[in-house]
Amino acid sequence: MRIILIIAILGCHLITAQTKDEKQLRAIYDMALTNGKAYDWLNHLSNQIGGRLSGSIQAQQAVEYTKNQLDSLGLDRVWLQPVMVPKWVRGTPEFAYIETRPGLTTNVPICALGGSVATPDGGLKGKILEVRGIEDLAALGKDMIKGKIVFFNRPMDPKLISTFDAYSGCVDQRYSGAAEAGKYGAAGIIVRSMNLRLDDLPHTGSMSYGDTPVQNRIPAAAISTNGAELLSTTLKLNPDIKFYFKQNCKQFDDVESYNVIGEIKGSTYPNEIMVVGGHLDSWDLGDGSHDDGAGVVQSMDVLRLIKASGYQPQRTLRVVLFMNEENGLRGGNKYAEVAKNKNENHVFALESDAGGFTPRGFSFDCSDADFEQVKSWKPLFEPYLIHQFVKGGSGADIGPLKDDNLVLSGLRPDSQRYFDHHHAENDTFEHVNKRELELGAATMASLVYLVDKYGFGIPKKVKG
Amino acid sequence: MRIILIIAILGCHLITAQTKDEKQLRAIYDMALTNGKAYDWLNHLSNQIGGRLSGSIQAQQAVEYTKNQLDSLGLDRVWLQPVMVPKWVRGTPEFAYIETRPGLTTNVPICALGGSVATPDGGLKGKILEVRGIEDLAALGKDMIKGKIVFFNRPMDPKLISTFDAYSGCVDQRYSGAAEAGKYGAAGIIVRSMNLRLDDLPHTGSMSYGDTPVQNRIPAAAISTNGAELLSTTLKLNPDIKFYFKQNCKQFDDVESYNVIGEIKGSTYPNEIMVVGGHLDSWDLGDGSHDDGAGVVQSMDVLRLIKASGYQPQRTLRVVLFMNEENGLRGGNKYAEVAKNKNENHVFALESDAGGFTPRGFSFDCSDADFEQVKSWKPLFEPYLIHQFVKGGSGADIGPLKDDNLVLSGLRPDSQRYFDHHHAENDTFEHVNKRELELGAATMASLVYLVDKYGFGIPKKVKG
Repeated sequence: MRIILIIAILGCHLITAQTKDEKQLRAIYDMALTNGKAYDWLNHLSNQIGGRLSGSIQAQQAVEYTKNQLDSLGLDRVWLQPVMVPKWVRGTPEFAYIETRPGLTTNVPICALGGSVATPDGGLKGKILEVRGIEDLAALGKDMIKGKIVFFNRPMDPKLISTFDAYSGCVDQRYSGAAEAGKYGAAGIIVRSMNLRLDDLPHTGSMSYGDTPVQNRIPAAAISTNGAELLSTTLKLNPDIKFYFKQNCKQFDDVESYNVIGEIKGSTYPNEIMVVGGHLDSWDLGDGSHDDGAGVVQSMDVLRLIKASGYQPQRTLRVVLFMNEENGLRGGNKYAEVAKNKNENHVFALESDAGGFTPRGFSFDCSDADFEQVKSWKPLFEPYLIHQFVKGGSGADIGPLKDDNLVLSGLRPDSQRYFDHHHAENDTFEHVNKRELELGAATMASLVYLVDKYGFGIPKKVKG
Repeated sequence: MRIILIIAILGCHLITAQTKDEKQLRAIYDMALTNGKAYDWLNHLSNQIGGRLSGSIQAQQAVEYTKNQLDSLGLDRVWLQPVMVPKWVRGTPEFAYIETRPGLTTNVPICALGGSVATPDGGLKGKILEVRGIEDLAALGKDMIKGKIVFFNRPMDPKLISTFDAYSGCVDQRYSGAAEAGKYGAAGIIVRSMNLRLDDLPHTGSMSYGDTPVQNRIPAAAISTNGAELLSTTLKLNPDIKFYFKQNCKQFDDVESYNVIGEIKGSTYPNEIMVVGGHLDSWDLGDGSHDDGAGVVQSMDVLRLIKASGYQPQRTLRVVLFMNEENGLRGGNKYAEVAKNKNENHVFALESDAGGFTPRGFSFDCSDADFEQVKSWKPLFEPYLIHQFVKGGSGADIGPLKDDNLVLSGLRPDSQRYFDHHHAENDTFEHVNKRELELGAATMASLVYLVDKYGFGIPKKVKG
């Protein structure tokens, strides 16, 4: 009898609590879908400012604009966190062609990889050697590679449902291809664009020479997927064709830039910090709407939505707009360094850096106990078609915060179209759907609300 | 001891069965994503044929093209099913303006609703009366409405997560607005386009005059959402503005057309028929890529994928490409009529008519027992991020088949962008993502495989 009574009381309590949470989520989604700010902010970032490569005027304009917008939200504190960032400049548009025989050439679309050195002033022409990946280089050896342009042409695997998994399976070619091929005396490298679609757009992205001495660094460019197919087919017909490309990109000295940070002070646990963020820098070819303008404006809107819903966070809630995710991660590293020096207690960090597409769920980098707690919130997200709660990586910028007491999370939007736009000139505003963007912001704000309300570590304490 | 043994055997059996199903689904998805035909077929339907309004040359070309393609798949039988369809022709592009005062006009984008009569040759000009819906008409009464152009301006509700729910909440204005306003002596009607986004594209769609005598029918047009906002704002400033529009659309006599049908004969239960389908006709403004070129090519690919995977269906599997869903449903009605006359036993029908976007799941119109069985297959779809298994409507074309012994189902793709394109000139091929389309085809084929393998009614028999 007593047991029944307890169950009845518990049951009532759960029903009440559930209903309150349901209402809060509904209020957040309603506001995001009827009165969201994310889309207008993105319009400005994309169409009034544009591509925001670290160290550029546009990146600085984005710092000023987002700081002003955060200032207007009536947060408890908004500030800039200085950080030195690399400054790499693309220069004039790149140019490339396949030369089937002297005088017979076909132009193909390329772009320099971010961080690459320039070709010689007159461009670089050479025989071309197609490989499927870095692991092919050792088998081919110096004799085969020396003086040639190595063409990395392993495509993304279309069978993988998450296109990010397909990206992970290829991106080593882009990131390390030049450093590795350089060891065998290659004159330059061309990489198939990280894109599942066949089209004419080259996709840039970061690369590293590792510890290659400056004088041994070779130029690296991406070729569009159609260009890669053409080059591969042409090579099969005639292995003696030549490839020409020219780029005059340049690395300058580091310059000062900023992470942009806004904060709502926690009412009960002000020293427990929750972070939401995205990265303010982007590549220079498009306007960086999906990568990561979307994550920036969604993160900003999380604080606005929480405030506007009338909810006062118990914990301190920060939005951090990280600088230089794309080619250095200096902003993410700086934020974690300062947090450590100040002995700040971060309990939760959520990043949106996978595009402004329909949200599908979250990935979590956390303990099993915390993951169980997160999963208990799944039913609250069902009405919004948020189904995916999985363990996995979170986001590059919040990664440096990682320790055992922190739950890291990444928003997981639908990934099918992401790499059609990623780092290419068509990562532009018109490819972001307003509702999809707003649903992402509401989904993030809902998770933040639940984390703030229930905290983490409860199962651990119960067990301990 | 015996119980344990039974459980162990059952357990092993289940594990084996599961693994076989998992492999079959993986094979289907792999083929769809690496060697799908849907996208190429859609390219032809959209870019070589174009909009396929019932009774048009393009609709006839689509019949011939899809029949030829089905013929090439080595099915057991491919045939055309004759059906008489309405023939409505838009004529020259429509034209409209807001007249603030004589001589001061602003053009706005409109299009005739499908089935509407023309305006008088010189166009129709009149005072305009904005309403939020049909229910406002009675309150306003004949005195207010007579001779005016009624402007139905209730927007779709952005708070609804399924945009189809928002569409359902508005579409009565478009479908019945002219018939209802006509009863009060309106001279014509203008309807806000069924679009959640603010843009400049008018969206057509079907409408009906009900039993309104021919001489009392008034012209009906859709105005773009931006146009509707402008008109509404202008009206608030000056209720005496006039609106002018001109359209010369015309209804002709019915013409003969066809449902296109292909079939794989069932090996064990040839008289149990499973249908997959979409509709071959479309509106005339765009090329009908999402509505419903996508459903057509996905349905065709279901049969190809099942065959290519080496699976021999026990039941007869038919693809039906229905004619005239948009403005008459004649194809769906004809198919059901013929099936009834032949006393055919349909056990399952699946329609794809919600766009070629990332599939999220299915809706089912069936008994609770059959729904329980369907839900037992959910884990098999998890790796493909197919989460939504709900009870609900299926599809217009398969609706006439409905009876108690049939499971009806509709593919549920992500709905956020659907009404940006629906029935408008931007329902075009470049807005369909190849992978999203292919994932839909694979998801449909996977469900068909499971239905064929396990059948329905098993829980009923167990219970009975």
